[in-house]
Amino acid sequence: MLEHIAVVLFRPKYPENIGSVARACLNMGCGRIVLVDPWNWDLDKALPLATHHARHLLDNVEIYPTLAEALRPFSFVYGTTARTGGWRKSLLLPEEAASAISAQRTEGEEIALVFGPEDKGLTNEETDLCHHLLTIPTTENLTSLNLSQAVMVVLYECFRKSQTKPFKVAGYPKERYIRHAEREILFAQLRETLVDIDYLKPDNPEYFMLSIKRFLNRVNPRLNEYNQLMGLCRQLRRIVRIAKGKGL
Amino acid sequence: MLEHIAVVLFRPKYPENIGSVARACLNMGCGRIVLVDPWNWDLDKALPLATHHARHLLDNVEIYPTLAEALRPFSFVYGTTARTGGWRKSLLLPEEAASAISAQRTEGEEIALVFGPEDKGLTNEETDLCHHLLTIPTTENLTSLNLSQAVMVVLYECFRKSQTKPFKVAGYPKERYIRHAEREILFAQLRETLVDIDYLKPDNPEYFMLSIKRFLNRVNPRLNEYNQLMGLCRQLRRIVRIAKGKGL
Repeated sequence: MLEHIAVVLFRPKYPENIGSVARACLNMGCGRIVLVDPWNWDLDKALPLATHHARHLLDNVEIYPTLAEALRPFSFVYGTTARTGGWRKSLLLPEEAASAISAQRTEGEEIALVFGPEDKGLTNEETDLCHHLLTIPTTENLTSLNLSQAVMVVLYECFRKSQTKPFKVAGYPKERYIRHAEREILFAQLRETLVDIDYLKPDNPEYFMLSIKRFLNRVNPRLNEYNQLMGLCRQLRRIVRIAKGKGL
Repeated sequence: MLEHIAVVLFRPKYPENIGSVARACLNMGCGRIVLVDPWNWDLDKALPLATHHARHLLDNVEIYPTLAEALRPFSFVYGTTARTGGWRKSLLLPEEAASAISAQRTEGEEIALVFGPEDKGLTNEETDLCHHLLTIPTTENLTSLNLSQAVMVVLYECFRKSQTKPFKVAGYPKERYIRHAEREILFAQLRETLVDIDYLKPDNPEYFMLSIKRFLNRVNPRLNEYNQLMGLCRQLRRIVRIAKGKGL
């Protein structure tokens, strides 16, 4: 069973596709489906494609108005994209992502697999919220994968990896990884601190924040590290306030 | 591109599923779809699911009345099944089958991937015609995989293997493997020969033939070996005729 994994569908257009996704989830043992701002969500249209075996997955579907809200409880967020320009370096193959996910699941972390709308996929706005991006290799770039077939491939790779237990290093229990919501708070705190200390220009901090975001996504901070970084930022900003009060 | 691979759908029930299969084939670079005795085949119902990019695959679909006829030109036939009882030992995982298929494709052999009807899958009658069987692991045995999702997983594994070239041993060119039609001729010739020499009982030769069939499926005879075996059988039967004429 793929515990701790949720399939997050961002603005899916066709309830039938959500039904097909539910069937794929059932077969691969993924028990959680999250819909973000779905278009024309209709359980009755989704059910025939899900078969009655997967009905409970559709009955328990979670719905959020925005992707940012939907992602809050997750420690690791994997976005899927067919767009390889620009991002090429940091794109994972499904089997690579599955290996990482397998280790993260074993630690009890919550993982979101995000899939975009059928016609357009995820835009930069959504992929910016994802900690990692993966792509399913295809021959044709003219057309895209069917939504449920894409979900099936990613879940199948995760399922296969779940059947061979990842190597676990013995040792004392580690602190959990930070959740998506905490990550966003940390980003905001870092951004404001770096502006305060005049490292970032206040008119366009996002450009410089991008490399810091990518770095943090790669290192996956744990809770104790998060607390240390937040404390460090608070201390820096306190010093800056004092320094600027003295006319610096 | 997955040249030399055909997706063979045995008695598919829903044209929409055939459309979804065509889309999966297009994305994975598989250019050949064969339908065997399809129920209510309707291009207009299949097209929306295929998207117009995959239209040529549906326009060029091949249709046969029986699986035996459809399989004649193929050197290697892989059947997919969810039934693991009895066959368990000889079932391949998709990634295992994909490794073998990758090597076979590189030699220019024609390969058929056979998928059964949506509701029942392949029965023993059809799996007997397949040289190898593969199964897609799932958690739930209550339900089956969606047809196009199953096709997608198998083609994806083949596609991934096609991106890493198999190791090729240098040496003189080998004879091609025998086609399915030749395999059937060889089985028939062996069966009759073994009955003639009183090795098999004429009332139920199939039971004993099964292990011989499996052996031949494992060794994958090449054309020169086929000719030798056929010649050996002819010679044996000639001797038996002479011996029996002498009252043996």
